[in-house]
This record gives sequence, structure tokens and C-alpha cells, in this order.
Amino acid sequence: MSQLHFVKHWPSPQHFGIEVLLIYDRIFERVPVTSAWVKKFPRRYAVTSGETLKDLQRFPSHVQALQQVAAGLTPRRMKIIALGGGSVGDFAGFFASVFKRGVELIHIPSTWLAAFDSAHGGKTALNVGGAKNQIGTFYPANDIYLVKPLLMAQPKDRSFEALGELLKIALLSGGDLFKKLQKVKSFNAETLWTFLPAAIAEKNKIVKKDPQEKSGHRQLLNFGHTMGHVFESHYGLPHGVAVLAGLQFALEWSYEKRFMNQGIYLQLMNESFWRKAVEAKQRSPWKQLSMMALLSEKPKIFEEYLKKDKKKSGAQSLKFIFLKSPGKPVMADVTWDELRHEIGRQAAFWN
Amino acid sequence: MSQLHFVKHWPSPQHFGIEVLLIYDRIFERVPVTSAWVKKFPRRYAVTSGETLKDLQRFPSHVQALQQVAAGLTPRRMKIIALGGGSVGDFAGFFASVFKRGVELIHIPSTWLAAFDSAHGGKTALNVGGAKNQIGTFYPANDIYLVKPLLMAQPKDRSFEALGELLKIALLSGGDLFKKLQKVKSFNAETLWTFLPAAIAEKNKIVKKDPQEKSGHRQLLNFGHTMGHVFESHYGLPHGVAVLAGLQFALEWSYEKRFMNQGIYLQLMNESFWRKAVEAKQRSPWKQLSMMALLSEKPKIFEEYLKKDKKKSGAQSLKFIFLKSPGKPVMADVTWDELRHEIGRQAAFWN
Repeated sequence: MSQLHFVKHWPSPQHFGIEVLLIYDRIFERVPVTSAWVKKFPRRYAVTSGETLKDLQRFPSHVQALQQVAAGLTPRRMKIIALGGGSVGDFAGFFASVFKRGVELIHIPSTWLAAFDSAHGGKTALNVGGAKNQIGTFYPANDIYLVKPLLMAQPKDRSFEALGELLKIALLSGGDLFKKLQKVKSFNAETLWTFLPAAIAEKNKIVKKDPQEKSGHRQLLNFGHTMGHVFESHYGLPHGVAVLAGLQFALEWSYEKRFMNQGIYLQLMNESFWRKAVEAKQRSPWKQLSMMALLSEKPKIFEEYLKKDKKKSGAQSLKFIFLKSPGKPVMADVTWDELRHEIGRQAAFWN
Repeated sequence: MSQLHFVKHWPSPQHFGIEVLLIYDRIFERVPVTSAWVKKFPRRYAVTSGETLKDLQRFPSHVQALQQVAAGLTPRRMKIIALGGGSVGDFAGFFASVFKRGVELIHIPSTWLAAFDSAHGGKTALNVGGAKNQIGTFYPANDIYLVKPLLMAQPKDRSFEALGELLKIALLSGGDLFKKLQKVKSFNAETLWTFLPAAIAEKNKIVKKDPQEKSGHRQLLNFGHTMGHVFESHYGLPHGVAVLAGLQFALEWSYEKRFMNQGIYLQLMNESFWRKAVEAKQRSPWKQLSMMALLSEKPKIFEEYLKKDKKKSGAQSLKFIFLKSPGKPVMADVTWDELRHEIGRQAAFWN
């Protein structure tokens, strides 16, 4: 498991030693504070974040450029620091995992989404053609720095995007994190920061039981992601926003299929955090987004996306994560027909 | 560690199950026996062996083609079989280690060199530009099949190339394998086959203590390789032939530096296996090759290669493996000056 560092100030660049290569989102060159920090690293490599960064086709030229920057570093001593959001972490993590057969990796996630989710658990990935995450490794960072001023500096709108993964992990765990969430007064950057340690710890508990996704236990983290990925691909929604909608879909279906009883369902929908999440949505750029609108497409279209999804378990069915109650997820095989039917049902329901 | 299978007959293709993708050296299409076997795999991908196969620049297009061939296979159930020599194993092993974040891998080494060395220990690798093995993973195969008729079918000349790694591991281990080698009557394909299990076991003992080359113990396997790599790069010698010359250089230097005493040195040079190796060389295409010729270049030229070598330990020195006696290797830092001087000394000595 990675060593976590929750820090209230930017760590000093010297702190990381001499043999360091910083891979960073070039956006940080435009912000005076971060730009000054970045420039203290003599060996650094700027990348443009986004899916194009993860394109396997472009990987060889990145490697050639990175090899120049890394010239003279000793494989066994060098460290790669990845400063950025999910795509930068995926790219730099994959590079670190295969460069000289693996060098030390440090993540400094710069988005709430990366801080809550993608920086943890060791997944790295590149895309092949249009297909996401076809190439990758399991390569947990040695250290992960959660830097408060870096995360707090994000545009306020973006904090809404972190809620998807936060609610997901709280619903899966049902423990202290869930209890703490029940008392939340508002979702803002300050509250997100306080939820961070517990949310990461709960994710790590699941990852630890199945680090390389072999037993299937880790698939629980896919909760809310089946339809989430579809919304993300089809509507071009940010991952976190799409996952939140996917969670809602999964909860509704859990109740409809009676995995969840009415009491728990109604209780959940009345939870403080659920209402606060709805409020946060109203303050976000996604306030117009409705489940009805999301599900208004023909189910056939969604099915095409799902069939491409790497998590499909076979030709006739797919694994879907339902929730019995907080802390009690259920993984079940559902057929395409069932899913198609449920999409239609929810589309009508939200109408 | 990988499961080893020493088999006297070709394994039946059905034996590997249904979800199988065979990556094989296209040379096997020209040999009737192997061609028939290969064609029994509905999903197969032919590659041209050699360093070009390992070029990172070409990797993305291989992946796209392989993705087509693999369409419909389930990541958690599929197996990749690599049939070929070192370059095919390096390429297919790397692909298996990163495709869908790692799928099952089976090696069927087709050269003696791969059967003795490269198929074992889990190293996979690609080249970046002219620099070898800059990108790679540690990814031991789940199973390794040593197929007697496949290995015996190699041209006789090629068996000489396996001696380098066999003598290396026997000298490093000094145990039963070394004792068995002392009694060898001749090096031919049949004797190589009988040495295979013990040689692999001894390599695995070293790998097991340091699977990811972290403690440095695994660097012992670099015995004979420092100058071996130089001879390989500069003269374009096959790896095994170059390593044999590199071993000889290392043994001479071990004696010169008094790591090895005279008694042991003379005894080693008189060992049956040493004389049989010299005889095998006389029967090989390399009979003209002399240490004197190999070392006739200016030491400066060799230094250039060494500096490029990824195993360099720093700017002013390099790690070199010496031998005290069979089973007792010594890893020591030597300076460029010392090495330069020793090259000059040995060049004069062999003259």
C-alpha cells in the first residue's frame, strides 16, 4: 500500500531528493504559485492532460523525450512525481511502472477526483484507439501527497465532481465514513478535505483484498460505474458527475429488484448527505442535468457502450453492483434484457 | 515462480484450453511439424524475431493488431502463449504484462538460450531507439514448457550459444550442477537437455532472493555480461557467444585481482567442461574467434558501450562480478581506469 501524506503546505522540492523527475500538467505553468514550485525541479516534463495523453500511439515519443530528461538518473534511486489529475496519474504511473522495469512513483493528485479515487489503488492505464484503459499495470505509488492548498485551489465547480466517488465508497463501506457523512452540513472544499482520509482508507480496504482484480472483490468499486461509464462516454460528462448519476441508477434498481427494502431506500433518499449532494448539484454547472434526460436515449445505444466496456463478464450478461444497505453491496449477473428493461422503466419513472 | 514442464512431446494445443492467443516466431510456418502445430490455434499472431520486434515505436501497431486477434477473449481467463526465442519472449511477455493490466502468460522457448536463460526469471523488455531493454516489466510466466523435440530441432551450431549461460550459472552456483558439469563428456543437444532442469533451478534460486532486482543480489546473474554486452554490441556476436567470452574475461580478471587463487584458477582451466567448451567452440562457426581479436580495439571504444549500459552503477565506477571459486561470486565496484587497464593487459596476454 502507498504511504499517505496529508499536508497543509506544499512539500519542499528538496524533500524529494535529487534524483527526481517531475511529470506535471502544463496548466500549472499558468498559475504563479504552482509555476514557481514546478520550476524548482531541474528535471521536469510538462504534459497536456486529457485522454489524448493516454493514447498508446503517442507513448513512444513521450518515452523518447522522457528518456532525455531522465538521462543520468539511476534507475534504482530515481523517483517520478506525477502532479496532476486522473489522466496525468494514469500516464505517469504507467511510464514509471515500465521505465527501466519500474522506478519509484509519487502521486500528487491535483483534482478532488484523483485525490479521492484514481491516485489510490495502483491502477495505471493507456488507451488503444478509442478503447479506454486497454493497456496498463497495477503499480501503487510509493507515496501519495494530499496537498491541501493544491486541492483547495480548484475551481469550486469541480468539487461537485468528487461527490460521486465519495458517496460510492461511503455506501460500499457503511462504516464510520458513512456515519460521518450522515452529519454533513454542506459539501464544499473544506468538508471534502475532512472526508479525504476516511474515504481513501475505505477504498484501500477493498483494494487490499484483491489488489490485482483477480478474485473479483475489487469489482465492488465498480458500484455506480456501469451506467456511469455509459453516461460519461455518450454525453461527454466528467467522470465524477457521470458516476453520481450511475449511483442513483444503481440505487433505484437495487430497490426495484428488492435487494434493498423500502425502509432503507426511503431512509437513504432522506439522508442529509443525499439532500446535500442534490444542493451541491444545484450550485454546480450540472444543475440542469436530470436522470430523465440521461435515460432518454434508446436503451440500444447504451448497450453498444456497455458491450465495449471492459468489465463485461460475457456475451449474454454483465456484472452489476447492487446495494442491500450501506456496507452491504451485492454483485449479480444481469442480462442485457433486464438492463434494457430497467433503463426504460427508470426513464419513465423520472419523467 | 513459474511452473516448469519438461516434456518429450509437443503438448496438445487443446491442453491449453480455448481462450488462448499464440504469439509465435513466423519462422515456424516454414517447418512442417511446427507449422501444423501452430495452425491448430485459431487465434494466433506471427512476428519476425529479432531486435526490431522489441522496438517500442512499433509496439502500438502490434497492440492494435493483437487486440483484433484477442477480441472476445475474457481478460481474466485468457492465456498468451509465446513460442520463440529471446526476442519473442521479451515482446510477448511485455504485451501479456500490460494487456488489460496483465493476462496469463505461457512461455515455450524455442532456442537453447531462451530455454536456459531468458524464459526464466520474469524479465520482459522493449527497446527505445538504439537503447536496449529501456522499457519492461517483471512478469514471470505462469507456465514454461521445455519441449524436447522443439529444442533438439535447432541447428547444431546454435547449441554452442547456450554454453555461456550454462557455464555462468554453474560457476555461480558451484553446487550439484557444477559437479555434474565436471563429468561432461561432450556438449551436444542431448547433454544440454539433461543440464536444463538443474541450470534453471540454480537461476531461479538467485532470482527468488531478489525477483525485482532491488537488493542487488540478482545482479550476480550479470556475471560475464559486462564485457559480454560490449562484445555483443560492438561485434554483433550472438548473446551466448559474447557471454562466453565475457565469462573468460571475468575469470582472468578474478585471478589477476587475486579474488581467485592460482590453485583454483588452474583447476578451473583444466576442468573437463572448460576443455569440452573449447572443443564445442572448435565445432562451431565461432572457432576463429579469439580473446585477442575481441580485445584488440582501443579500450576507449569499449568504454563508450559500457557507459550506455544500463547496469552502470554511477559516473566513476561500475559493478563487476568476479569469482573467488565456483559458488563464490564477488560483486565489486571497479573504476573505468581499472577496467581500461585490464582490457589492455588481457589484450597483451592473449597476444
